[in-house]
Amino acid sequence: MELESFLNERKKMIDQALEKLTPPENTFPPTIHKAIRYSLLNGGKRIRPILTLTVNELVGGNYKSIIPFACGIEVIHTYSLIHDDLPVMDNSDFRRGKASSHKVFGEATALLAGDGLLTLAFQIMTDPTLCQSHNPLSILKSVNLIAQAAGLQGMIGGQTVDIETQGKKFALPLLEYIHTHKTGALIVAAVRAGAILGESTEEELDALTEYGKKVGLAFQIIDDILDVESSEKILGKETGMDSAQGKATYPQIFGLQESRERAETLVEKAEQTLGLFDHSRAKTLKRIARHICERIQ
Amino acid sequence: MELESFLNERKKMIDQALEKLTPPENTFPPTIHKAIRYSLLNGGKRIRPILTLTVNELVGGNYKSIIPFACGIEVIHTYSLIHDDLPVMDNSDFRRGKASSHKVFGEATALLAGDGLLTLAFQIMTDPTLCQSHNPLSILKSVNLIAQAAGLQGMIGGQTVDIETQGKKFALPLLEYIHTHKTGALIVAAVRAGAILGESTEEELDALTEYGKKVGLAFQIIDDILDVESSEKILGKETGMDSAQGKATYPQIFGLQESRERAETLVEKAEQTLGLFDHSRAKTLKRIARHICERIQ
Repeated sequence: MELESFLNERKKMIDQALEKLTPPENTFPPTIHKAIRYSLLNGGKRIRPILTLTVNELVGGNYKSIIPFACGIEVIHTYSLIHDDLPVMDNSDFRRGKASSHKVFGEATALLAGDGLLTLAFQIMTDPTLCQSHNPLSILKSVNLIAQAAGLQGMIGGQTVDIETQGKKFALPLLEYIHTHKTGALIVAAVRAGAILGESTEEELDALTEYGKKVGLAFQIIDDILDVESSEKILGKETGMDSAQGKATYPQIFGLQESRERAETLVEKAEQTLGLFDHSRAKTLKRIARHICERIQ
Repeated sequence: MELESFLNERKKMIDQALEKLTPPENTFPPTIHKAIRYSLLNGGKRIRPILTLTVNELVGGNYKSIIPFACGIEVIHTYSLIHDDLPVMDNSDFRRGKASSHKVFGEATALLAGDGLLTLAFQIMTDPTLCQSHNPLSILKSVNLIAQAAGLQGMIGGQTVDIETQGKKFALPLLEYIHTHKTGALIVAAVRAGAILGESTEEELDALTEYGKKVGLAFQIIDDILDVESSEKILGKETGMDSAQGKATYPQIFGLQESRERAETLVEKAEQTLGLFDHSRAKTLKRIARHICERIQ
């Protein structure tokens, strides 16, 4: 199957599951229900959950059975976008081609929608019926590593330093801290959870973790590049924001050309880490790594 | 043991555990580390975790082994206070006798500290090593019900309606929705988690759930009364805020006297729901219910 159709099919699967996993309208206040659906069912690329499913299949798991975990990761990602866009944070008015949550629903609802989504993610991933198809210990391990990745020592740590260093001078180690924590950690967790829930070997888990680290960093470098190169129309959010806000980015340190080369090198290395798998089985994951580097949005 | 010494001893136990469960300083940015410790280790009464431990002991559990779950609930409670105090929400400048988080650290850090605590709570409660002392299915059930109680259909739903009805006319059903969701849900979850982790019978769980509902509502009615009656000095936060913000409260509908009577009736009923337990074993839980109603802060 062509990669594009593969990604579209998986994206559809995730979209449908997210729709089903959102609690019904009459069970909580309508404003926040609207706000949650607005951000959650809004044409995201679903890269993180697709990675989870693909890794799971690679290590021999029944990938359909782990859709709730894949969705949990996407729900966490969505909450982080809503909170990041708030005026006290990045103050972004657009997201995925539409007005950001607080522009439509107000700041209080956007804040609560984010809190609600973060909590919902853990509700989805700890559903006791998941024990029917999964080892409870593997479930706990996965949810725990996802919480770590999303938390103080992961995504939130990265976002904190990102906000704190705006407009300041920065060196590469700081930029790497931001990128590996703000974006990388959850991508690595998406990969690792897929492996653990598929009962992978330790060796497979180690290789896939390395793959996740490299893909995660490449993903963020490309994001930095797109913020400079792409247009608002293609990207669906304001561009040039990083530079306007004095944010730490790869192009600022290395320029566009070297940044792109670095991302490409990371993708090659990511592909190499999959050497212990049959090429025929690992090729989708390799193609996803390349796709991330070639995306124009 | 006198109730006061019992509560102090348990509070100390919780405080020490919270200190230990906060990730070490050098593992995430110092600003947010300070903000988290500021709100988390700040003299809270620890009513929710104490309920969890006491219920667990009552149904025959080894209460010391469930301290991480009890702490997880307190961490969720703490995040909710930080976010509720933000200017876009209740805009409260004081909490527990000190300046609220955003007044000290700024809104961005307060927002991130809240997000970080909510995530940390789930990280703590899904620690895979907890399987050494607990049935993994009971762990998942407990974490799941806590997530539900803290989420859209629980605490966040209640907070949303609370914010939305400020300054508007309201009737008793709406007020009850706010109280049972905003405060009640997490208190019920604290009680239920203690029972489930102690492998209680269904009958015990049902009775304790009823106890939790009644104590939770009584707790919030008393909070409403204290906002009218108490002084800022005793309460450690601004008083008269409910009325100033046009909030839905019990005293507004029933007046102070009837509100207090209703809280007392709820406490009596809470005590009665514990009828299936030996009085000698259940008396601490009964006393806690009464204590909640008699507190002056």
